[in-house]
Amino acid sequence: MSDEIVTPTPSPSPSAPPVPTGPPPKVTNRGRTAVPIASSNSDTTDVPEFEPFGAPGPRGFPPLTEFLDIWDVNMIKRPDEINRKQHHTVLYNSDNLIVRRGQEFQIKITFNRPYKPAEDKFALEFAIGSSPQFSKGTYIPVFPTSERQSTWTGRIINTNENMVTMGITPLASCIVGKYNMYVAVMTPFGIRRTRRDSSRDLYILFNPWVADDAVFLDDERERDECVMTEMGIIYHGAHGDIAERDWNYGQFNYGVLDACLYIMDRSDMPITNRGDPIKVTRKASAMMNSRDDEGVLVGNWSGDYTYGVAPTSWTGSTEILTTYASSKMPVAYAQCWVYAAVFNTFLRCLGIPSRVVTNYYSAHDNDGNLRTDIILDDTGRIDRNRTKDSIWNYHCWNECFMTRPDLPPGFGGWQVVDATPQETSDGMYRCGPASVQAIKHGHTCYPFDAAFVFAEVNSDVVFYSRSRDGTLELVKVNPTHVGRLVLTKTPGDVSRRDITDQYKFPEGSTEERTTLEKAEEYGCKREKSNLPEADVDLVLPTLEVSVGDDFELNMEFINRSDERRVVDAYISGSVVYYTGVTSSEFMLRSPRVTIGPNKSVKELVVVESKSYMKHLVEQANLHFIATGKIKETGQIVTAMKVVPLHNPKLTVTVSEGGKVSEEMTVTVEFKNPFSFDLEGVYIRMEGPGILMPKFKYYSLIPAGSSLTWTEFFTPHRAGSTRMIAILDCPALRQVQGQASLTIEP
Amino acid sequence: MSDEIVTPTPSPSPSAPPVPTGPPPKVTNRGRTAVPIASSNSDTTDVPEFEPFGAPGPRGFPPLTEFLDIWDVNMIKRPDEINRKQHHTVLYNSDNLIVRRGQEFQIKITFNRPYKPAEDKFALEFAIGSSPQFSKGTYIPVFPTSERQSTWTGRIINTNENMVTMGITPLASCIVGKYNMYVAVMTPFGIRRTRRDSSRDLYILFNPWVADDAVFLDDERERDECVMTEMGIIYHGAHGDIAERDWNYGQFNYGVLDACLYIMDRSDMPITNRGDPIKVTRKASAMMNSRDDEGVLVGNWSGDYTYGVAPTSWTGSTEILTTYASSKMPVAYAQCWVYAAVFNTFLRCLGIPSRVVTNYYSAHDNDGNLRTDIILDDTGRIDRNRTKDSIWNYHCWNECFMTRPDLPPGFGGWQVVDATPQETSDGMYRCGPASVQAIKHGHTCYPFDAAFVFAEVNSDVVFYSRSRDGTLELVKVNPTHVGRLVLTKTPGDVSRRDITDQYKFPEGSTEERTTLEKAEEYGCKREKSNLPEADVDLVLPTLEVSVGDDFELNMEFINRSDERRVVDAYISGSVVYYTGVTSSEFMLRSPRVTIGPNKSVKELVVVESKSYMKHLVEQANLHFIATGKIKETGQIVTAMKVVPLHNPKLTVTVSEGGKVSEEMTVTVEFKNPFSFDLEGVYIRMEGPGILMPKFKYYSLIPAGSSLTWTEFFTPHRAGSTRMIAILDCPALRQVQGQASLTIEP
Repeated sequence: MSDEIVTPTPSPSPSAPPVPTGPPPKVTNRGRTAVPIASSNSDTTDVPEFEPFGAPGPRGFPPLTEFLDIWDVNMIKRPDEINRKQHHTVLYNSDNLIVRRGQEFQIKITFNRPYKPAEDKFALEFAIGSSPQFSKGTYIPVFPTSERQSTWTGRIINTNENMVTMGITPLASCIVGKYNMYVAVMTPFGIRRTRRDSSRDLYILFNPWVADDAVFLDDERERDECVMTEMGIIYHGAHGDIAERDWNYGQFNYGVLDACLYIMDRSDMPITNRGDPIKVTRKASAMMNSRDDEGVLVGNWSGDYTYGVAPTSWTGSTEILTTYASSKMPVAYAQCWVYAAVFNTFLRCLGIPSRVVTNYYSAHDNDGNLRTDIILDDTGRIDRNRTKDSIWNYHCWNECFMTRPDLPPGFGGWQVVDATPQETSDGMYRCGPASVQAIKHGHTCYPFDAAFVFAEVNSDVVFYSRSRDGTLELVKVNPTHVGRLVLTKTPGDVSRRDITDQYKFPEGSTEERTTLEKAEEYGCKREKSNLPEADVDLVLPTLEVSVGDDFELNMEFINRSDERRVVDAYISGSVVYYTGVTSSEFMLRSPRVTIGPNKSVKELVVVESKSYMKHLVEQANLHFIATGKIKETGQIVTAMKVVPLHNPKLTVTVSEGGKVSEEMTVTVEFKNPFSFDLEGVYIRMEGPGILMPKFKYYSLIPAGSSLTWTEFFTPHRAGSTRMIAILDCPALRQVQGQASLTIEP
Repeated sequence: MSDEIVTPTPSPSPSAPPVPTGPPPKVTNRGRTAVPIASSNSDTTDVPEFEPFGAPGPRGFPPLTEFLDIWDVNMIKRPDEINRKQHHTVLYNSDNLIVRRGQEFQIKITFNRPYKPAEDKFALEFAIGSSPQFSKGTYIPVFPTSERQSTWTGRIINTNENMVTMGITPLASCIVGKYNMYVAVMTPFGIRRTRRDSSRDLYILFNPWVADDAVFLDDERERDECVMTEMGIIYHGAHGDIAERDWNYGQFNYGVLDACLYIMDRSDMPITNRGDPIKVTRKASAMMNSRDDEGVLVGNWSGDYTYGVAPTSWTGSTEILTTYASSKMPVAYAQCWVYAAVFNTFLRCLGIPSRVVTNYYSAHDNDGNLRTDIILDDTGRIDRNRTKDSIWNYHCWNECFMTRPDLPPGFGGWQVVDATPQETSDGMYRCGPASVQAIKHGHTCYPFDAAFVFAEVNSDVVFYSRSRDGTLELVKVNPTHVGRLVLTKTPGDVSRRDITDQYKFPEGSTEERTTLEKAEEYGCKREKSNLPEADVDLVLPTLEVSVGDDFELNMEFINRSDERRVVDAYISGSVVYYTGVTSSEFMLRSPRVTIGPNKSVKELVVVESKSYMKHLVEQANLHFIATGKIKETGQIVTAMKVVPLHNPKLTVTVSEGGKVSEEMTVTVEFKNPFSFDLEGVYIRMEGPGILMPKFKYYSLIPAGSSLTWTEFFTPHRAGSTRMIAILDCPALRQVQGQASLTIEP
């Protein structure tokens, strides 16, 4: 070899890095993983019909006569047959078998001749996703004999001539999704199996009825509500004036189960993770929103819903989920209760017990920081330019029920998951599962996002006074405003259930203090200053007001001191979004109030509808903040009150005597009560078991005029149900109506 | 009002949802948050030069003569001045002041007249991001008097005629990033302040030298290595044949600090979170890779790096980070050590102590599942089609040092963060910070991703035998193969340091068993079967082999029984990627070995270079798996060995007598030792304080020929350093060379 010098070929620019040019790099995983990780339930790998043994011996296709041949496989999949009944899956509108894990189901196989247990060897094979593997739990053979058992158990229940009824019990921790099923017969030449037949595909769901399942819920009433109930109630409005919204979760409707599996596929969630309710719920909390990952729903709080459906306009989840699965595009638009409602459908559909809860005065976007700051100027008036935090009037999230083997004992049970994208949560638009027990006891160190949820129910409201040179002085801390009330629907009833005590110990109790101290150990910082309490109290009344009404606000000043007190007060009224964000201030009064020793004085403020009507946004809420500075002591007093304005109602009337398969009518009536026209009006209507989602569009409803919409429908199952309707337009959101009815068989 | 009936305007399709048409929806946050959350350090809000007080009083611009006027502000920012020296930021190549939090720095202000403490009121104001707010820690006024103090403390150090030297101590938990600085003077009319001047912008970094900082590291030697050292060593190769790679982290190079801030801006990380090292490191672990979030580096394990730079070709982080910041596009390509190295630069640059560690035999992509499955067929031979898990020969990640206030006491200190995208980690391509203490003790329930890292060092290798009918039978569990060795560089030295004991208790110890039991409590499942131990051992030798060499593999069979044993063995040799993924099998032997009672037999296998040379990929590793079935007992014996092939070396020679600012030369020499040509060859070279990254491209190096590249350079600082060079081309990866040198002042 010669030692020739090679002349270097100069590169275009010797010191600059070679910036990639041309087409974008195509990166494969060759060298990274042996096979791509199966993350789609719709991808399948066909198993060969004949798999010859590699061992020496006679070759060729085995003679058909000698060994078992399969003539028919009956999945026993009709809703009125044993499998669906025993597995609580009768209501699913699907042509395939749907069963739950950890519980036996049956399949009937007809051979060409009677089965001889001593000689014949066959197995049922279940496979899910691409590249199914036994060690990953994605390929499971099930044997009929007790000597030979795999992870799922099998047994012969019955033999009748050529027909064998086999019982199969999937592992209570198996993967949830859609499986392919094969019957395989062993011959000395190899394995012969049935061809793939999509009518034999079966869905295996979570099973809250079985003790070995991580989602086991040992309470029939709760289980019936949180898994089987389609029609729900979501609470909104304000603490002190709670409003209800009916919602049709529709988890059994045609296409919904497939849409739920599609959501997991779309998220590239590995198939092997889909048996773990912790992983499924965490992933799904990210996938419900379109941030990061092209998930189900586009959030919009802007008031402009021109290019989609207003969040206030939806009546149920079915339309949203089936649209997402068919368009493969995020659906517009959602706000918190829409995220929670659609997530609830997902969870109930897969068999994870779940409920929607509403937290009144929910601290937000504060990333585990336990405070919401309100800035007053040096005269005691709120400084709206500098007050940037907001407290949501209410926020909806979900609870789902499961064990938590990843945490120390005691943190199983209800878990918070939240699909509403939180701007500053752990960098991702997802939240939970966070153990409700861990939140109650301040163990915010446990995954996932417990500190974040803890702050949503426990933050302090901190008032600062801003001095002339720009520095802030702490003037008041309100530790009880946030997380005032947590509600969910009562199982089996249409009433509300207060579950605040599951999140918090009673105010002022020793346990409450211990909890807050525990949370502080884990980095939740609180404002800890012993401010002297002001000796004047300021109380704003609770009011119920309808949209368009004039009303009076009677503010009370109570002097608890033995001296006269003069208060320079500011009363500010503004229109707010339900997120607590101020749209516009429509009223400001600044009375000076003089109160005798140990006396109280009422200050009456008249609010005329014309002052607020032109400013209304969304779910119409008025927010009053009263602040004042006591002249004698310099102390600051404050009070806040949200007044939700009540909307008019829709009248929903259903014809008498409902029977399965007999046509009925429903009529929706509405009268525009205002002196202005309503434009761009949608009415949506649906009812579980009676009507799939329908809508009508009205370009104009003139001031004072009425409309009537009559629709025919045919109930397809018996029982109590409700027809719900919502009217929605930019000028008037979420006008609701409903009618209860019972369908006879 | 008349009760007219409005005719409904039929919508296009009454039952279909109104699919959005036209331009995509523009969603704003109006109604969602009061102001957008500040998440960019490059966005700033200019503070007004004059801010009149709203209170009643005289109006108009204050007379300039009466109050303090600011003539000059000296940031004392030069590297040779007091601030940079005391704050250990001398080495940063930047024109701005760079200091660390929790420690005083100085600013000199020259007024128009002497400062009168009793009458004059002024403050220094520091602001970061848009909409700076005092309550969020993004706007901080600092006062010169002890009566009046904000969150950061200030004092007058010195007054000299018109000049005041002020000392400012930022809070030890303040936000890390680039601040604007203003001097504000209070007048009775309002606040007057200096105009924004970018030369007065200052960077505030984490401070490992200060006890109040969450990243405080009380060990001078470690701190010097993990914060201040630019040239590092990253270990690779295989357990038993460890190789080293030099890497220039370059954290002080021009543009690197700005690139690190850009990475956080690009991730939309809220400014308010940037003081918390837990949040900063977690977010950055996601941002180092381009998955999900258009982060810094594109991963590629395919062997085809045509459109970018081969992962094996980089010599340091500078080129990567500055390219990312200027192109605003992910940089191609990376594998694990590149992710870890660039992440290390990010961490050291911001002042978080960090080091790159290498775990030998790292279990991967198993999502906290404690096992790696190897499938043998019924004759005992490995079934490569069905063996889909892989064990990486090594994997690199980072450790960073910090307190963990979010966890119970005892879990602070070193934390694992990993920027290499893991396919099946918690749904996101990020990992950590996970407490090393928590991993060691099996407390895998603590965030973040401790279970995942625990599995990387503790998984079992599980051998299955696949029977003819497709079911698997467990035949062997190897609990000690994975996580055999964890290495990092010794502080202040170029030797390796074994830190395996920080991750694991000694094998077979009581503590080890307790740890594994604890981890199992938290859902890490292990294979627990008492398989009888085979009485034949199979041992593969450790070898050191150069690329192109023929060599012998002397496999030993040891019979520990008192009877004769016959083993039908399979010895499979394949070329593997460092990820353990098999590229191609180049050798297979199937000897039958007979071993007398309590005897051993050696089986010699000759491996010729021609058999493997044409199959080589990437970092050339040969992987030998020997398996066998003992005829008498049916038991399976196994052994595995990775043989990394040693590459030729580059010769790097530096001219004698280096002095600051005096030109020197470096020469890189290489001879192609092969009988084939090398094509598309890049050589990269750099050295801290002496040479910024340079590269040359050679289209062809003919078989047997040599090349010489000579480069001039001018050292810009004194001290010991190294010049490192790498030659890389598709046929021959990472040929390294280096030269140590000392630069005199």
